[in-house]
Formats: sequence, structure tokens, C-alpha cells
Amino acid sequence: TKGLPQITSADGKSAMRLRGRMLFDTSSSFGSNFDRRNITGTKARAIRLGVEGKLGDMIGYQVEFDLTDNQAALRGAYLSFTKKWGDNIYELSLGNRLTDRSMEGASSSDSQPFLERNATALATAPRKGSFGLGAMARVYGKTWHAAVQLDGNEASTNGSVSDSTTLTGRVHWNPWRNSEAIVHLGAWGYREDFSSGVASIPLSTRIGGRFNELITVQASSLLDPDHGQAFGLELGGVYKSFWMFGEYGERDVWARDSAGGRHVGVRAGSIGTGVYLTGEKPPYVARGGVWSKPRVLRPITDGGWGAVEIAARYDQVSYSGPLGGEGYSTTLGLNWYLLDWVRVTPNWIRWRTENRAGAFAGADEGNTVVGRVAVSF
Amino acid sequence: TKGLPQITSADGKSAMRLRGRMLFDTSSSFGSNFDRRNITGTKARAIRLGVEGKLGDMIGYQVEFDLTDNQAALRGAYLSFTKKWGDNIYELSLGNRLTDRSMEGASSSDSQPFLERNATALATAPRKGSFGLGAMARVYGKTWHAAVQLDGNEASTNGSVSDSTTLTGRVHWNPWRNSEAIVHLGAWGYREDFSSGVASIPLSTRIGGRFNELITVQASSLLDPDHGQAFGLELGGVYKSFWMFGEYGERDVWARDSAGGRHVGVRAGSIGTGVYLTGEKPPYVARGGVWSKPRVLRPITDGGWGAVEIAARYDQVSYSGPLGGEGYSTTLGLNWYLLDWVRVTPNWIRWRTENRAGAFAGADEGNTVVGRVAVSF
Amino acid sequence: TKGLPQITSADGKSAMRLRGRMLFDTSSSFGSNFDRRNITGTKARAIRLGVEGKLGDMIGYQVEFDLTDNQAALRGAYLSFTKKWGDNIYELSLGNRLTDRSMEGASSSDSQPFLERNATALATAPRKGSFGLGAMARVYGKTWHAAVQLDGNEASTNGSVSDSTTLTGRVHWNPWRNSEAIVHLGAWGYREDFSSGVASIPLSTRIGGRFNELITVQASSLLDPDHGQAFGLELGGVYKSFWMFGEYGERDVWARDSAGGRHVGVRAGSIGTGVYLTGEKPPYVARGGVWSKPRVLRPITDGGWGAVEIAARYDQVSYSGPLGGEGYSTTLGLNWYLLDWVRVTPNWIRWRTENRAGAFAGADEGNTVVGRVAVSF
Repeated sequence: TKGLPQITSADGKSAMRLRGRMLFDTSSSFGSNFDRRNITGTKARAIRLGVEGKLGDMIGYQVEFDLTDNQAALRGAYLSFTKKWGDNIYELSLGNRLTDRSMEGASSSDSQPFLERNATALATAPRKGSFGLGAMARVYGKTWHAAVQLDGNEASTNGSVSDSTTLTGRVHWNPWRNSEAIVHLGAWGYREDFSSGVASIPLSTRIGGRFNELITVQASSLLDPDHGQAFGLELGGVYKSFWMFGEYGERDVWARDSAGGRHVGVRAGSIGTGVYLTGEKPPYVARGGVWSKPRVLRPITDGGWGAVEIAARYDQVSYSGPLGGEGYSTTLGLNWYLLDWVRVTPNWIRWRTENRAGAFAGADEGNTVVGRVAVSF
Repeated sequence: TKGLPQITSADGKSAMRLRGRMLFDTSSSFGSNFDRRNITGTKARAIRLGVEGKLGDMIGYQVEFDLTDNQAALRGAYLSFTKKWGDNIYELSLGNRLTDRSMEGASSSDSQPFLERNATALATAPRKGSFGLGAMARVYGKTWHAAVQLDGNEASTNGSVSDSTTLTGRVHWNPWRNSEAIVHLGAWGYREDFSSGVASIPLSTRIGGRFNELITVQASSLLDPDHGQAFGLELGGVYKSFWMFGEYGERDVWARDSAGGRHVGVRAGSIGTGVYLTGEKPPYVARGGVWSKPRVLRPITDGGWGAVEIAARYDQVSYSGPLGGEGYSTTLGLNWYLLDWVRVTPNWIRWRTENRAGAFAGADEGNTVVGRVAVSF
Repeated sequence: TKGLPQITSADGKSAMRLRGRMLFDTSSSFGSNFDRRNITGTKARAIRLGVEGKLGDMIGYQVEFDLTDNQAALRGAYLSFTKKWGDNIYELSLGNRLTDRSMEGASSSDSQPFLERNATALATAPRKGSFGLGAMARVYGKTWHAAVQLDGNEASTNGSVSDSTTLTGRVHWNPWRNSEAIVHLGAWGYREDFSSGVASIPLSTRIGGRFNELITVQASSLLDPDHGQAFGLELGGVYKSFWMFGEYGERDVWARDSAGGRHVGVRAGSIGTGVYLTGEKPPYVARGGVWSKPRVLRPITDGGWGAVEIAARYDQVSYSGPLGGEGYSTTLGLNWYLLDWVRVTPNWIRWRTENRAGAFAGADEGNTVVGRVAVSF
């Protein structure tokens, strides 16, 4: 599948293939009132290596590591069981898996229409991050899917205190669909209960790309956190080569009563749109309501020029409380897919932050230009 | 072999295959008098990725990393030369390899009948751990094998002091064998000389599973260690689908004379037994006297229900000296092998610790329940 | 190619293979006046795992990690585009790639005639190290090649300050060549501009092998560095089974004006020679002017005895300034290639250091013996 090299066992029952991902960024920020924010540099955004395979019809597995920043981190590493029953497909997976939460949050980092997930997915993420170690159950119907994941700490934690736990659910529905168009509705929510080992929750969202860690909207960290909860809504659709999707989300975290029970919330909204100039369909996957990678019609390995997509997005983030900042950003993006696997993506981000604390308090505006080369298989 | 996908070179002389391992645990402890010990959480017990291969008939190699706890650690990574001479097979391996020491210590972490190696293997392990970087020689006869390994520090150390060195030997003999039964006798020993860069030796054994690092039997660390030595005995056998094995071991470590020459010892014994309810043979490997993974008769990929084994083990550990603790544990285990590669294992451990120092001094009893899902190829 | 297992896609357009490397060293130093320098130990010099492949005729990629010292580090990880135009081949690569700088510096660590690169390559290396994250352009003519690389910080850096940048160039020319002999001329240079986040530049070169980190020629670190520049020359050739190559290099680094503008320089020269007793050609690659691995005529997998090379090298390093040390070393080496992939290499190094500061100031002489077993595919 996908023209990818694959290894199959002699009896044909098990198959295995390598997975790899390289995302290299060059980022330059300019125009900020704070000189320190106007920085330039290169970064390996994600470097992964792994294996995936299947054993008969029912069992699948994946092991994948990320070694960005010269630190090893577990990514997708799970065992899954799939079974058709009536009209629906039931899937149980055990291990470390990307959490099904928000449309862009549930899409892989190499399948986003822009360089980074939208601010809604980022700002409302639970403390555990995009992945969770635990159990996930999914049901796929003809025009919908539902997912529930219960997970403990990330894979790396050791045991001298109980884990934090997070329970996440998401559903999506395609109320209308024909060969040219599809409409997407989605909703998600989670509840997180923090381990006594967690001393504080950082509350900060980068809106000038991943490299520049100084361009953030932020509130002061919440000390002695007790629990958090969040929900979000998704609405959008695809028509021929054109797409438009919006997301809205809220997250609230509370400190322990013994620590005063302080509460901080964040509200975020994002709307994005794009069109493939070269005639491809936007790679919306109706099965799980997420983004995938496009099928390039004229890849350069066949003598073509690849696929070209132009896209734009608006994001807004707002933290509550006396020290809660707010900000927004507008992103223009171009995606040139040389072939299904290889992509060159420049993004131009115009951002504004209004923080009330920290080194960059006050209103500030600027620009960040990021270019990425990505290989992903 | 094993129905595993493999890559072979055009001339057929070299072959290579991927290796992978994922062991995910959920652990819950309860009933301890110390509230802090009653914790619950998830953990990736081992996540590995690697390659193994052969070059002609004589040369084999393996490279494998473990990335548990978001830290990269070298596991099996060696070059081996094998040659038949008369009735025996001689093998020399250079690099980082699992040390041949105690039956469960010499068996891979994915081939144990319970979730963790028995307390004898754990408590008597040398400071360098299960693996050693150096040279190993093995001879395999028809009913026996012998192994000697000389190794320096683990792969990661750099050079501003001389390495510690460990010399380990093990032999096993099958005095009686027919198609239904086999008897196993084994013995091992090692001598370790500590580098001047080693400031202290931790003396502690986890007996409530790997996740819960608070349920230990322990003595206070030995400062300024000079050398250590240890030996052990193995006895057991297999009859049809039933097995029973016992191990006993002693380890003693001494401080430098300049530091008073203090001495601490540990004594440990373990006995385990199990039976495959679905008719498989216990996966005892007579060649090296170790555990492997069972050949499942009716794997679920063939429409069967897999293999089921029930097992029980008793472990006892005792440290010497005025601050030396002691403890024991009883483990009941169930192994459900969906196929050769995939295993679901719940273990129930009833444990008792009597430590004389540390945060959990005094007699304490409790229970730990651990569930594991494992994929290993 | 090379008899290596490879995976090819069904349509034949994409191919992929695993890459792996294991270099294990045992090192012993003796004869130094400083007892602390006379140490013995083992070390994993390099342990790598990766993937490389091609997509059609134009696109190549590689992802490779090094996990030595139990730390994950990105090595070759890039995407390359290659195009023939007239008589020349043009190549653009984006990502993390070995910098083309000095003959031994530009040769892979598993293709050196001795265990470590010569002192010229080591002492004149930029702060970023052997690899650089950025863009590299190369042109290959019939008897020459030229390379330019612009890179930012290593892959691991994050962004709260601008990156350091390094611009490196190298050319080589083969003025004379026939079926038995080839002459090599080369030159390289670079300019590095340090990020404001860089507090100091270490100035130290190991001349007793990689394991022993105490046998160095050194100057005191340069604080508050501003920029550096370096150049080097290469001259040598191959005749039948015999080779001789020499390299000379200079590097100078300057502190910021605000820090007094202090300057430190290093000068280094190396000359090496060797001969294959078993008749192989030295693996000089005329395309890029670098070392590769030899084609063994009688590999042991074909019942032969492999290839044997003997080699010798002289290295000299000298740091400027009142605290700048100097030193030299003579290395005798033997390379036994069992087959193209597998190599056993003992090196004997006679070294002398004359440092003016640090724990080992004053004249000192000694010996280091290092043995290596290497597998590399």
C-alpha cells in the first residue's frame, strides 16, 4: 500500500514495514518590540523511526520512537485488536497511542495542513500531552465514529506515587456526504486527575511556531493542581479540492482545596481553509474524522510537478484570571507535495500577544516565517 | 523462522530481520500499612527496537536499543562467531550481551514465566546489571553447555578512570531426558572488581513488581566498594505440559580496606511451577538451559484461542548485617498467549517486607496486582 | 548492492534498507608519568540504527540515530535531490548531514584507516561538530567535486536565542589518474559565527584514542566567543594496494570585543600511509575525495581469510597563546576485514603531550593500545 516497501512472512499472515519521519524547520521571527523575540534558527521538529505490522486479520501493532532534541521519547507503541460486528467495526488498543481529541489534535503531526496544530488543539491539550499510555476503545460506523481512552502517566514515569489519569472521549458524524462533498461535525471532552507528584501545571501556548519558544500566550503556572476538564467542538467540510474547518475548545484546571482551590481557564478558537490548486482532494479521512496525507496526482517520481495547496488560518487564545494573557495569529501557508511522502511547506505567521506577566508583558506584534522540509513514511 | 518477516540478500548469504518488544504494565498495590506504598499506575516495562542478522554460516550480529523511561539504553548489541568442532559447538561473541547467570537471569525479559525474574536472579545480580560489554565464550555439548563472560563497564561509560570488571561463568547439564521429560541442573558464579569511580553499591530488591519502587527488601548501600562475589544453583525439570524450577543464590560485597572493609551479603531462594492447560510444552531450551517463548498450538490467527498457562512462585530474600532487611513473596500468574508473539499476563503478588532502615522500616504486608500486554518479535 | 538485504516496493520505484553500526573498543593506556592517565576500559564507540532509501531516480533519504553513551543523537538524517546536467551531477541535501570538511573529517567514522580521525580533522573541527543541520549543495565533475554547506545549530537546540551558523566549503581535484594510481589534492575552509547563547568554546584534542579522555592536548577554553575561521589542505594518492595522505589545518577563534577580543589558534598536521597485504585497492572514492570501506577479495563467508592492511600515521597539534599546549602521536595500525562489513582493528599509539595548564601540565609520554571490533552495514 502507498507504494511503500513491505516485508511479508513466508505464510503471508504477518506483514511488517518500517516507519520513519523527518521534519526539519528553519524559523525566523521579526518585527517584535522585544528584541529577544526576533530570533532565527533551525530545528529538527520530529525525527522518528519505528515499525508497524499486522498478525492475521485481527491484530495490529506499532512501535515508534521520537528522538528529537537528542532525547528518546515513545510515540505510537501499541497493540490493537479489530473486529467487525454487524455494521460496525470495533477496535481495542493497549499501549501508547495518539489521543483522539480535537480534529487537528487527533491528526498525526505529519498530516497537518499547516506546520503546527491549530491553537485550539494546542491550548486545550491535557498535561499528559498528545499521547496517552493506557487503553483506547473505538467504534466505527458508516457515517460516524466514537472513541474513549483511559490513560495513566506517560510511558516514562516510574512508581513512587500513583499516576495521574485522564479519561478522554470524542465522537464525529458526517451528516451529509456525496462523491464531491462531505460535512463534518465533532465533539470531544476529557477529565484529568493529577497525581500528588505533580507540583504545577504550565499554562502557555506557542503561537509563533514551534522553534520560537518566546512567542507565547500565557497565564502563570497553576501550583498544586487537583484536576482539570475540557471540551471542544468541530465543524467543517470538504467540497472538491476545497476545505474549511473550525474548532472551538475550553479547558479549566483547579488547584487542590488545601492550596486555595484556585482556578484557571483557557478558551481557544481556530478556523482554517485551503484549496489544492493541482486538483487533489483534501485528505480528510471520513472513518475517523481526521487529516491524512493527500494522494498526489502527478508525483515528481512520475515526471509531474507534485501537488500544491494554499491555505490560511486564524487562531485566538485567551487565558482567564488577573495574570491571564491573550493573543491571536493569522497564518498563510503553502504546501508543495513532491510526492505522497515528501513535502515542502513555508508558513507565514502574523501574531499578536497581550500577556500580563512574564518577560514579554504588554501588547506585542510580529511575524514569524517558517520553512519545513518533511519526509514521512 | 517463527513465521516472521525476514529480508534476505540477493546472493542468499546474508539475512536480516527486525526485532521489537513492547511490554506495557498496569500495577496496583494495596493493603500496605504504609499508605505511600499503595499506589496505582501504568508503565512501559520495556520498549525495544533492533535488527539481527547473519552473514554466511559463521557470523551473526544483533543491535538492539531499549528506550523505556524515555532514555536510550543499549541492549543486545554484539557480533558472534560460531563453529562446530567434533560434537560441540563453539561460540565467541564480542560486544554487549545478556550475561549467562542464573536460569531466569539468563532468560530474556520477554520469556519469563512471570512478569519479573525471580528474586534470586534479581537480588544476586552484579552491579553492572543483566548485560555486560566485553567478550563471551560458550560451548554447547549434547546435554550441557558452559559459558564464560569477561566484561568491563556498561556500554555508556567514558574514560577518566579504569572500568569495573566482572568475570561470570555458568554451566548447565541435563542428566536425564526423553521425549516427555527433562531434568535440569545448573550452577553459576561471578567475581566483580569495582572501579575507583564507583562510590557506593545500592542493596535493594523489588518484590512487588517493577512499577512500585517502594516495595523493596533492602540493606543500606555499601560505600567505597572494593569487590564482590556470588554463586548460585539451579534445579528443575519439565514433564509434558508441567514444569517446576528452583534457584538459590548468594552474593557478598566488600568495602575497600581503607573504608573499613565492611561486608554485606544477600541470600535468596525461589521456587516456581506451572502448567499449560492447552497442551503446549513449557518452552525450556535444553541447548542453553533457559526459558524461551512457547509454540502456541492454536494461535488466534488460525482461529484458535491461544495458549493458557497457570503458574505460582515463592521467593525469599535476606540481607545480612544490622540494617539488613528480609522479605518474601508469593506470586500467582496466568499467561494467555494469543500467538507466539503476543501475551496477556496478570500476576497477583502477596508480599511481606521486614526492613530495618529506610522509610518503610518494620514488618509490612500487602498485595500488588499487575497486568501486562506484551508484543515481542 | 554490497550483498545487503534490501526492501523494494511492488512498483520497483522505491527501495529501502536498514543501516546499522556497532564499534566496540577496549583501550589500555600505560607509561604516563601521571598515574591517573594509565587507565583501562571498554567502550561502545558508536552504535547506530537507521534507514536509507530512494524514491525514483532523483530523491534519496536517510534517517540514522546514534545511541552511544546511552544518549540519543541524530546522525545522518536528510533528504537529497540529485540531477545530472551536462557533464556534472548536482546534489542538494536538506537536513542533518556529515559536513564535507577535511579528507578524514568528511569520511564516515566507520571508514577511517585508523580507529579515530587524524588530529588535523579533530583539532580543527568547528564547535558544531562533524554534522550540521541545514542545506548542502554539491557538484560532482569527472575529476573533481565541490561542496558548500550552510548550517545552524545542531538538531537538538531549541529556540530562545538565535542559532550559531557555520558556512563550510571544500573542493577536491584528481589531477592525475590511471587504472593503478590516483593523485588527490584538496582544500577546505569554514567560518562560524557563535550564538549569544554560547558561553565558551572548549579547546582540546584527544590524541590517545577516544576512550581515554585524559590524554589531550589543550588550551584553556575561550570565553564569550564571537566567531571562528579555519582552513585546511589535503594531498595524497593511491598506487596499487598502497596509499599515502597528508593533511594540514588551522583554526582560529575570537572572543567578543566586549570580552577583550582574545584570540586562540590551533595548528595541526597529519601524515598517514598504509598497504593492503592481501591485494585489495585502498578504498579511496574519487567521486567525493573520501575514504570508504574496501571490497574484500576473499571474504571469510566465501572460505577466504579476509583482507589485511597495515598502516602508520604521525599527528601533531599545537595551540597558541600562553596556556596553549602541544603534542604529537605516532600510530601503528592493523586492519583485518573479515568481510566488507566486519573489521577487527588493533591500534598502538605512542603519544606525547606538553600542556601548560590543567591537571596534566608539563611534558608527558605514554602508550595507548586500543582494539576494536566493528560491524557496519
